[in-house]
Amino acid sequence: MIRGLAASIAALTLALASCAAQGQQVAAPVLSKDALATQIGEKPTSASPPTGQQWLYGSAEGSIASAQLYKAMAQYVRAKALNRAIKSQTVLADGSTPDAPRFESCGSKPLAAVFDADETLLWNVGAMRYMAEQGKDFDPVIWNAWEKSGAGKALAMPGAIDALKIMRDAGVTIIANTNRTAANAKGTEDTLRMAGLGEFKHKDTLYLMGDDATGSSKDGRRAAIAAKYCVIALAGDQLGDFVQAFNAKGLSVADRRKLATNPAIADMWGNGWFLFSNPVYGPSIRGGYDEIFTADTKWEPAK
Amino acid sequence: MIRGLAASIAALTLALASCAAQGQQVAAPVLSKDALATQIGEKPTSASPPTGQQWLYGSAEGSIASAQLYKAMAQYVRAKALNRAIKSQTVLADGSTPDAPRFESCGSKPLAAVFDADETLLWNVGAMRYMAEQGKDFDPVIWNAWEKSGAGKALAMPGAIDALKIMRDAGVTIIANTNRTAANAKGTEDTLRMAGLGEFKHKDTLYLMGDDATGSSKDGRRAAIAAKYCVIALAGDQLGDFVQAFNAKGLSVADRRKLATNPAIADMWGNGWFLFSNPVYGPSIRGGYDEIFTADTKWEPAK
Repeated sequence: MIRGLAASIAALTLALASCAAQGQQVAAPVLSKDALATQIGEKPTSASPPTGQQWLYGSAEGSIASAQLYKAMAQYVRAKALNRAIKSQTVLADGSTPDAPRFESCGSKPLAAVFDADETLLWNVGAMRYMAEQGKDFDPVIWNAWEKSGAGKALAMPGAIDALKIMRDAGVTIIANTNRTAANAKGTEDTLRMAGLGEFKHKDTLYLMGDDATGSSKDGRRAAIAAKYCVIALAGDQLGDFVQAFNAKGLSVADRRKLATNPAIADMWGNGWFLFSNPVYGPSIRGGYDEIFTADTKWEPAK
Repeated sequence: MIRGLAASIAALTLALASCAAQGQQVAAPVLSKDALATQIGEKPTSASPPTGQQWLYGSAEGSIASAQLYKAMAQYVRAKALNRAIKSQTVLADGSTPDAPRFESCGSKPLAAVFDADETLLWNVGAMRYMAEQGKDFDPVIWNAWEKSGAGKALAMPGAIDALKIMRDAGVTIIANTNRTAANAKGTEDTLRMAGLGEFKHKDTLYLMGDDATGSSKDGRRAAIAAKYCVIALAGDQLGDFVQAFNAKGLSVADRRKLATNPAIADMWGNGWFLFSNPVYGPSIRGGYDEIFTADTKWEPAK
């Protein structure tokens, strides 16, 4: 409840900030809840960062989980690139759905791998620490400043630099598709480069929110990329990095999980679609006890 | 600080409970902090489970992260089993260390894969919900009751059942090495079986805390398993599931991460050692701001 309220307020604030920053009209209803619901995490304390941040940004386990998946992904992408068989897109074909998916054949398009930026390519240690120390889950005004001026204070996710080198060496173009705003394109290009992730160029290898009129949905941008490239892999920390339908309004926690793991697409995970663990923020961080746990596993100790 | 204190109190309580339950002497200094520090998570609220629990037990993302790694591990183990080349142990050779590791050749021993139980094979949804709803991070007395009576209320981790079938079909023996106590062996055997994970038998394919005199360290049990089997894969959610040296007292957050990702063993991750994401509890959940974040990435917005 409180979280929902905070999200709504934050959404409004970002919509305003975003309008001012971009000097253009923003599709507020699209921008609002969906985009912001992905940014509400756990309340930090002054003594130490939230549990999820301790795991993701500090622990050996968090670093290993990232590097381990980057290694598997690089191996997959390299093998796929070297295989002479005709390839398919990993971007869902226009009009198809996660429970009845279609993937188009690539023809002779050049190969690409498409990544989310935040907590997939980029470890946002600078901004996450600052917001947590201020006692804030997420603050859109601070985040906007981070997009502009965070270069040099964000790191590459563990394992990303080595993996990107392997993929690029195999002839695969690396593209970022992120909900950072188009107004801050230069800041994000600089941030990616200074984290050691290489050159990204807006509207060429960097797709941002505001590039089209569909707000935080990445489907349109994915389609634009797939029109030019054979996208042999998608990577992200949230389901919206793969298909926007997973973010459909009103989808319960259980139904969202069911849709994302239904037999028609379950095999994509780890096999074209690569999901990085982010227990800090995003649409995964949602749900009361009865939504997270099922009634049939309810237990209590004997009295 | 408060967390440390809670851990100490909890440790004492468990040591007592454990003594009573087992009717035998327990090596209290070994059992205490190390074992219990791994169990202190984040404070839940009455409104919803902690953030980490929402991610791990409810979200599509948490389920996919587990299933994705189980798929990669099954593929690895199957390929390894079918390969006729002489194999090496993934258990560190006696006397060697993570920064100067040695792995012994297997000779003709039968193949095995060794798993941690909690949050690796088992999704402890029943106990985690109960403790969180009681406003508790972790309660050793409740946990002891869970080990005894949780069968049917714990689930298999997403992807585990399919992966174990693939590995067993390839002729690999599945063994659990867990810090559940030997006193509750039957409860844990029942819990694993009723979760659909198959038959585990104490001292044969199930190794428990109390099987030897080294408390929560799994090194001795790993050595006992490697004496009989060629352990081609280890899986767990905490570094102690691989090598006890990672749990050395006084190791800082940064040094622990450095040791676990040092060049001599970095390649093991995803390649013999498989680490599952658990942002809810364990030794990964530790550290203040200056331990989690480095000074060179400190950032603040321009005033």
